[in-house]
Amino acid sequence: MNSWANRRVVALAGGVGGARLAEGLAQLLPADLLTVIVNTGDDFEILGLSISPDLDTVLYTLAGLADPARGWGLRGDTFHCLEAVQVLGGPTWFRLGDRDLATHLLRTHLLWEGRTLTEVTAELARRLQVLPKVLPMSDDVLRTWVLTDEGPLAFQDYFVRRRCEPRVSGFQFEGEGAAQPSPEATRALDSADLVILCPSNPLVSINPILRLPGNRERVARVPSVAVSPLLGGEAVKGPLSKMLRELGRTSSALEVAGHYQGLIRGFVLDEVDRPLVTQVEGLRMRVASFPTLMTEVGQRTQVAQRVLEFAETLL
Amino acid sequence: MNSWANRRVVALAGGVGGARLAEGLAQLLPADLLTVIVNTGDDFEILGLSISPDLDTVLYTLAGLADPARGWGLRGDTFHCLEAVQVLGGPTWFRLGDRDLATHLLRTHLLWEGRTLTEVTAELARRLQVLPKVLPMSDDVLRTWVLTDEGPLAFQDYFVRRRCEPRVSGFQFEGEGAAQPSPEATRALDSADLVILCPSNPLVSINPILRLPGNRERVARVPSVAVSPLLGGEAVKGPLSKMLRELGRTSSALEVAGHYQGLIRGFVLDEVDRPLVTQVEGLRMRVASFPTLMTEVGQRTQVAQRVLEFAETLL
Repeated sequence: MNSWANRRVVALAGGVGGARLAEGLAQLLPADLLTVIVNTGDDFEILGLSISPDLDTVLYTLAGLADPARGWGLRGDTFHCLEAVQVLGGPTWFRLGDRDLATHLLRTHLLWEGRTLTEVTAELARRLQVLPKVLPMSDDVLRTWVLTDEGPLAFQDYFVRRRCEPRVSGFQFEGEGAAQPSPEATRALDSADLVILCPSNPLVSINPILRLPGNRERVARVPSVAVSPLLGGEAVKGPLSKMLRELGRTSSALEVAGHYQGLIRGFVLDEVDRPLVTQVEGLRMRVASFPTLMTEVGQRTQVAQRVLEFAETLL
Repeated sequence: MNSWANRRVVALAGGVGGARLAEGLAQLLPADLLTVIVNTGDDFEILGLSISPDLDTVLYTLAGLADPARGWGLRGDTFHCLEAVQVLGGPTWFRLGDRDLATHLLRTHLLWEGRTLTEVTAELARRLQVLPKVLPMSDDVLRTWVLTDEGPLAFQDYFVRRRCEPRVSGFQFEGEGAAQPSPEATRALDSADLVILCPSNPLVSINPILRLPGNRERVARVPSVAVSPLLGGEAVKGPLSKMLRELGRTSSALEVAGHYQGLIRGFVLDEVDRPLVTQVEGLRMRVASFPTLMTEVGQRTQVAQRVLEFAETLL
């Protein structure tokens, strides 16, 4: 990947899919040239703890500590505290692992001391020996609400407590307009040579990042590639397919590409979606099709490699 | 113990010794007639958590969940969160167990929601199925500082982080004068038929309770018995002997009795201290001497029984 030796890459990421592609990119790119800007629209508080699920997933994945199967939390974590919370009648719908709790305790404590989420994340990354720069999209609050047939639900409430069961009719972003992208994230985007929209949920993971003032324009100025989170119309993890259908849209890579039309130069879809290539090209973007599953660690580097090779043709 | 069936007993307690006698009393007395007022001078914050070490020791002991050897924390608890806090560079000198953390998280959260420490303690007690009333001495902050050759140290700082090693020259009680006894503790003392000063450290566990405005007078109005925490001049747990010596005083049950002179009617010392009985009687109090070690659960009931029998002779 010598051709990337001096180019700055920014990845926009939500949880699992974004974290896995970021891990692959981190294997290939010099750490000082890779920045991952992470969705914080899912952030919330429970038991007084400030939780940043996507930041944690990205940090834990880049540190090689993520649970390989679950898509959240730390590998081999225990849940003794949570069991005791249950005995004490506290909330247990969000599965706080014992080791995971250390992250939340420190984050909450440092935020209370007046540090920004960007500073706190940098400190956690340093301690976890994560070398690429991991940035929250904002130090301000922009919270994703899912509008459902049960009323508006805060994202984690919808996602974890209600297991994505309510029918989705739309989204609202609390704090929109007021919340600004962090100075660090703005600088990273302004100096990027390539932006990669990771295979995260475009509606609730990438969308909040792009809705921060100026971010859409910043991304549009740079060569950018999006990787479809849908394979054969299904998401590897998460409720994207269900959401799209409930919104009356098609659950397909073409739909995702359409969502990003006018923003990106290149689109990657999985080899199973190769029949859609011509249609996606009709959206005035270049298209690549190859295996994009990243369950195994080795696959993550392979996908990252092919994404970078494809991106090189767009510069 | 039929004679106690309608009498209200209030026990003043610090940590281990107080908790153990309270447990014995709870075996003998109807739960609605026993109130334990607990020192909160050792309370402190770490990682944003509000910790009440003596309240936890009393609650865990009464719930039958206390670690039998350590004198703090829950039996069989794990320390996975703390190990992760260490990796993240956070403070680890206070040994937060994983299950124990649930108590701190819930307490902190409920206090932030505006509940009083008394209300929070009642809720924790209810969940832990602790039947006697357990009350913090105050809902306000009265913090014990230990004056040492290393300067003033907050109590837990002295006790846990510095392992009681610095030389003690005195104590200060931050918030003294402003901090009031809780209404519930005041009511319990005002309606008590007997007050028992548990075998807790008189200088740093019982003292803060008595220094709250009006408490000394409230206790003095009621028949009261103190149980010596020193056996043969040594404390079963904690730094009392060392403190007394460093303050130029004698480490003996006689010294403890002298400390309570004018306040209590009866004093219990261990059988090993029987030679001191006449001297303690010279302090104008009645004295009983019997085995007071409460390491085993069975001993706690025996000691409580003999304390109550002795107290009956004082009414």
